[in-house]
Amino acid sequence: METLVIKLGGSRGIDVERFLAALARLETPFVLVHGANAELDDLMRRLGVEPRLVTSSTGQVSRYTDRATMDLFLMTYCGRVNKRIVEALQQQGRRAVGLSGMDGMIVRGRRKPRIRVVENGKSRVLEGDYAGSIESVDPTLIQLLLANGSIPVLTPPAVSDEGEAINVDGDKLAMELAVALAATRLIIFSNTAGLLRDLDDPSSTVPIVEVEELDTYLAMAQGRMKKKVQAAANAVRRGVGEVILASANAADPIESALRGSGTHVVVRNEL
Amino acid sequence: METLVIKLGGSRGIDVERFLAALARLETPFVLVHGANAELDDLMRRLGVEPRLVTSSTGQVSRYTDRATMDLFLMTYCGRVNKRIVEALQQQGRRAVGLSGMDGMIVRGRRKPRIRVVENGKSRVLEGDYAGSIESVDPTLIQLLLANGSIPVLTPPAVSDEGEAINVDGDKLAMELAVALAATRLIIFSNTAGLLRDLDDPSSTVPIVEVEELDTYLAMAQGRMKKKVQAAANAVRRGVGEVILASANAADPIESALRGSGTHVVVRNEL
Repeated sequence: METLVIKLGGSRGIDVERFLAALARLETPFVLVHGANAELDDLMRRLGVEPRLVTSSTGQVSRYTDRATMDLFLMTYCGRVNKRIVEALQQQGRRAVGLSGMDGMIVRGRRKPRIRVVENGKSRVLEGDYAGSIESVDPTLIQLLLANGSIPVLTPPAVSDEGEAINVDGDKLAMELAVALAATRLIIFSNTAGLLRDLDDPSSTVPIVEVEELDTYLAMAQGRMKKKVQAAANAVRRGVGEVILASANAADPIESALRGSGTHVVVRNEL
Repeated sequence: METLVIKLGGSRGIDVERFLAALARLETPFVLVHGANAELDDLMRRLGVEPRLVTSSTGQVSRYTDRATMDLFLMTYCGRVNKRIVEALQQQGRRAVGLSGMDGMIVRGRRKPRIRVVENGKSRVLEGDYAGSIESVDPTLIQLLLANGSIPVLTPPAVSDEGEAINVDGDKLAMELAVALAATRLIIFSNTAGLLRDLDDPSSTVPIVEVEELDTYLAMAQGRMKKKVQAAANAVRRGVGEVILASANAADPIESALRGSGTHVVVRNEL
């Protein structure tokens, strides 16, 4: 059975309502994975708390998620954003089921309670972070819902081996899920049109990335896009038919991505 | 198969952590239904918004839930409270799946967008409320999860016929679910010990209410307890084996309620 995994980013600048109206028309069985990064920042600021980004010794920037921040994370990701997406799909006549990666222990990860960060040029250890990396995805519950005609709507956090809620990367969650489901396609929608040859020119999208030529393309990518391309390559190497990086704001974004817009990451001999 | 529905109230004065540790030891298959009323008030006040209670022309007091309040409702009920309960159960080695009544359209209701309220002795119509009454519960997804060895953790809101999130009463949700599942028992835990003969004497709990003598007991009950006893009677008349109203703060609250503490609402010939 053809199955799609669709990831909708949680950054600013995405017309979510319009995207979901288009998504509700998709007839192929699919799972929606979403983030809520900008909404979490907004809630924190409404509460007078400044979001805290930390830079690891390897240069990775991530959100410091202590216990109080995780409470607000659960509110936005699993609460408002997840359920408003479920509501929007159901208003279009689709049956959706919103879940976090914790529910039914779908997404398990390893918590890194201590992280080494660099602040003002100095390296130090920061305690109390509830974040980590994904170790496994159990697709059973998702498959049960798909078989039952429902749309699973999945969001971080994941659950640690100690049963704690942990912040994990949404793109990686979508990739690991696509691998676990042996999905035919994974489409990662964000506010950018894919991998661009020239960051200042939205029409310079690279249409196809063959994983055999990965290094060439990685050299082109910056920051978050570099991580996306790398992870997409890992996903197709591990059996996902194709990973598409596309703009959530395109006209008819899902159809448009399936018909070739955005950047398609593939294994050459399967093209 | 014996199935329990357990309702945990969302009022202040409940030791939730202790309650969940006891609940995690329960071996009979069960569904947990919960509220988050006090937590919602807390979040609203942290955001500088005063919760608004309205009194209907029939004297019922309810929370006015406009669209902005529903956003905060989703944050607390479906977000922080639901997922922290899932986390607590999973830390005790149980697999839990947190859902709202909207998910999979489990709980459907009828929205009353206009309510007639009495303010300062004057009756007027208030628009924009996202609240309503439960019309049906579809137990399919819950049964699937129970069969799969998971603990479903269910919370308002429900979904209206127009697909909107609507605030519904948590006790009634638990009762309708118990009826739909043909549950052997429904236990409603709150911060009170059941129906008291004398409100000032916690040891005056009425141990058994036979629905044949309902009026006698309703005369004893006040406010919210009157609604609980009435709804409990409806549930046993509609096939639930027994409804127990009990304190969440008792020592070993679930075992204690099953062994006879609290108020047991039954049909006489089934005693």
